[in-house]
Amino acid sequence: MSLQEQKERLVKLQQKMAAYGHAEGLIYFDGTTGAPKGTAENRAQTLGILSEELYNLSTGQDTIDLLEDLDAHREELSDKEKRQVDLLLKDIRMMQKIPLDQYIEFQKLMVEADDVWHTAKEDNDWKLFEPVLERVFDFHKKIAAWCEPEKAPYDYWLDHFEEGLTMEKCESFFASLKGRIVPLLHRVQEKPQLDTSILHGHFPAAAQEAFSYELMKLIGLDLDHVGLATTEHPFTTSIGSHLDERITTHYHEEDFSSSMFSVIHEGGHALYDTGSDRDLAYTVLDGGVSMGIHESQSRFYENILGRSRAFCEYIFPSVQKHFPQVQGTAEEFYRAVNRAEPSLIRTEADELTYALHIMVRYELEKKIFAEEIQVKDLPAEWNRLYKEYLGIEVPDDKRGVLQDSHWSGGCIGYFPSYALGSAYGAQYLRKMKETVDVDGCIRKGDFAPIGEWLRERIWKYGSFLTPAQVFENAVHEPFDPTVFTDYLEEKYTELYGL
Amino acid sequence: MSLQEQKERLVKLQQKMAAYGHAEGLIYFDGTTGAPKGTAENRAQTLGILSEELYNLSTGQDTIDLLEDLDAHREELSDKEKRQVDLLLKDIRMMQKIPLDQYIEFQKLMVEADDVWHTAKEDNDWKLFEPVLERVFDFHKKIAAWCEPEKAPYDYWLDHFEEGLTMEKCESFFASLKGRIVPLLHRVQEKPQLDTSILHGHFPAAAQEAFSYELMKLIGLDLDHVGLATTEHPFTTSIGSHLDERITTHYHEEDFSSSMFSVIHEGGHALYDTGSDRDLAYTVLDGGVSMGIHESQSRFYENILGRSRAFCEYIFPSVQKHFPQVQGTAEEFYRAVNRAEPSLIRTEADELTYALHIMVRYELEKKIFAEEIQVKDLPAEWNRLYKEYLGIEVPDDKRGVLQDSHWSGGCIGYFPSYALGSAYGAQYLRKMKETVDVDGCIRKGDFAPIGEWLRERIWKYGSFLTPAQVFENAVHEPFDPTVFTDYLEEKYTELYGL
Repeated sequence: MSLQEQKERLVKLQQKMAAYGHAEGLIYFDGTTGAPKGTAENRAQTLGILSEELYNLSTGQDTIDLLEDLDAHREELSDKEKRQVDLLLKDIRMMQKIPLDQYIEFQKLMVEADDVWHTAKEDNDWKLFEPVLERVFDFHKKIAAWCEPEKAPYDYWLDHFEEGLTMEKCESFFASLKGRIVPLLHRVQEKPQLDTSILHGHFPAAAQEAFSYELMKLIGLDLDHVGLATTEHPFTTSIGSHLDERITTHYHEEDFSSSMFSVIHEGGHALYDTGSDRDLAYTVLDGGVSMGIHESQSRFYENILGRSRAFCEYIFPSVQKHFPQVQGTAEEFYRAVNRAEPSLIRTEADELTYALHIMVRYELEKKIFAEEIQVKDLPAEWNRLYKEYLGIEVPDDKRGVLQDSHWSGGCIGYFPSYALGSAYGAQYLRKMKETVDVDGCIRKGDFAPIGEWLRERIWKYGSFLTPAQVFENAVHEPFDPTVFTDYLEEKYTELYGL
Repeated sequence: MSLQEQKERLVKLQQKMAAYGHAEGLIYFDGTTGAPKGTAENRAQTLGILSEELYNLSTGQDTIDLLEDLDAHREELSDKEKRQVDLLLKDIRMMQKIPLDQYIEFQKLMVEADDVWHTAKEDNDWKLFEPVLERVFDFHKKIAAWCEPEKAPYDYWLDHFEEGLTMEKCESFFASLKGRIVPLLHRVQEKPQLDTSILHGHFPAAAQEAFSYELMKLIGLDLDHVGLATTEHPFTTSIGSHLDERITTHYHEEDFSSSMFSVIHEGGHALYDTGSDRDLAYTVLDGGVSMGIHESQSRFYENILGRSRAFCEYIFPSVQKHFPQVQGTAEEFYRAVNRAEPSLIRTEADELTYALHIMVRYELEKKIFAEEIQVKDLPAEWNRLYKEYLGIEVPDDKRGVLQDSHWSGGCIGYFPSYALGSAYGAQYLRKMKETVDVDGCIRKGDFAPIGEWLRERIWKYGSFLTPAQVFENAVHEPFDPTVFTDYLEEKYTELYGL
């Protein structure tokens, strides 16, 4: 087969993978939105078959031969083709290092773990979850040892989810954050709390939905290619390619700001995905490159833009248009949406305390991999760290160590990328302000210059650049977490009159 | 390979086909419900790939060998396996008789025809559609000649869509209908029209939606396995198997009865599909066997039950609960929902005139296949027959010959099954009344005995029995269209005081 034919097969392979991804993504999306509630088994039947088909396609001998051939001629490939081959080979290389029976056992374990976790969380039953989580962590150690024996196992998994991330980077990053955020939070807590009563009342879902669409358009989403639905937990997903993106929200009728900031957050994810260059569609380079960079977009829109004074001033008349019962001033609204206080649940945490939730998880994962603690110690350690970092008591495991789906979902080593993403945003903002009048644009409701800045530096590359390259390409300077902590300190000092 | 292994492969083959069907069905459903409006191209990309995969799976040499081997040992197969092999071989046998280049050309033609029809209908431009429809009819003639040269081409297509249906059966059926319905309609038209004002007003979609769910539960749908959505045109579809069914409706805010009867109609389809025995799931025997039997269920629920006096009396208090502005009596409601009058659009036709719309289409299809008329004659012939059967003038082709998607969708020979289904229902009713107090049940809101009767005789078989066997099995007597015309005559004589 000629190299040209191989390149065509590479295109076709990725198109097929995207088609299966479309089916699987939509089935998952449907399961959380319109599907009748007794149909999970039916979806599982189909997903089982389609994922087997996709697995055979992406890891079959034909595919391996093709990719290895192309890899052997990489000097004749374009940069994009090289990156495609690398990404496609990544999982194959990993699988090649794991004994087949172990690989299958791992898949089964993760299905079991997810199932047990759901019950354990619902029943607040850590003891139910503990043995299976022990096996999950053990398996993660084994996989790391098979795949990259020269690396510390936790480094293997950090890199697995955020290419290039290491414990060393995390250590200095989190130390920097902890040293600034914990004292800042203590000072905030000494002050009278900000008043959030402006956010409360009764806000019918229909009015919130109309407001959602207005927000989506405002931040620059193309509603011809981005849909909105409601689910228990908000999320964003691409359906087949970046040409069809869906975000979801959840309307709390007693507080309109919850869905409002969910929409902006998920909208940030969707802007990133849909901002991929058109020719990346139906390739593995389509859409955002990592959860870290993804969160750097979603949290940038939600917090850095959405919770800015400029935005609150711009949007407040719209808030009052959709919810006429909202009285008060834009300034009161700004203060209400920026209330900071330690809380139990990561996904509900505010801009100031969010990173502390992540640090708890990072510390625990790190210590388990280092065998400094064991899985059975997790609840006590969890509660101890929440007390230390956030100053609060965890009343039960349901609202403690059992709250997240990540560990049972095979995402150990995933959390740090969230905090990284938060911190990146502050540095984007500083850089962006060199050429864009960010506040001025927001005050006019003109998000286009902000979007263009991000598109040119980040979005358009999809997954072509590595996460580290994306950041470097965006700001042309090293990552400096003090930009983020400076941002927080300035904001909260002013807000709370510290 | 042992027979046992072959049987297992037969199971696996059908499970895979069901999984692809799940994906394709859901992508289609999504396209008409939640998908952003600019995403059609993205769906086309995925559907193109998945349908190619499914095509390769269901018609690949491995599959053909398997099915032919099993067919050669049919005496060792169970009845269900025999029927599975027969149904799976049906399309393969057809494809084997069509030259490959012609088969591909046909697929392309149908894509083109569908596309041209959409534009032609929108622009009321018959001349645009005529040449492509000419090629569509010609191709249908060629295919019939390749596949069953001994049969009249129209008989081939009638049987293709409703196994066992022939022109001979249609002739006597439609003659019987025409001889009774046309004079009955004339007598109706001489009387003062029934008053429908009770149906009109402003009925918010949210209230109609609540009513929809009440109706779904009332007729016996299991909402854990049947979902409801809104679309431009109501339809019903299975998602992967009968364990996940979706119906759709369209809320006209000025007339609540439109959606009400759509929900009952689509609900009838859904009852049929979801009534398949559990072990038929993920086989080709899952769900309804033909459009004729399907319509015999949907129209039974919509018209024979839903437009009965007993039902109108039972449901009227609920109507007033959901729509408090509705004044008047159950009897006025009954009369309003049974107004009969000639109209232009088949899908909006009432119970009395519906079959006449079908007969126009049957006559035209028959004459084209018999070469008594040509495609270019269709608009004039259409308008002539609407005048003759329904007594109305067709103002334009958009509301005439261009209204249906069937001809451009490759469904020539499909229409007669709709009328057949309508007629079957009256005979079910007569038979059912021998053992079930139908009106008594309805007056109590107890649909279970009716559903059980249908489940035991029809639903549970899925596609295991042929359409003719289903009907025979349900009533144990020959099909007699006069039962239907008697039913109509009795109903409309009383309603209009003829």
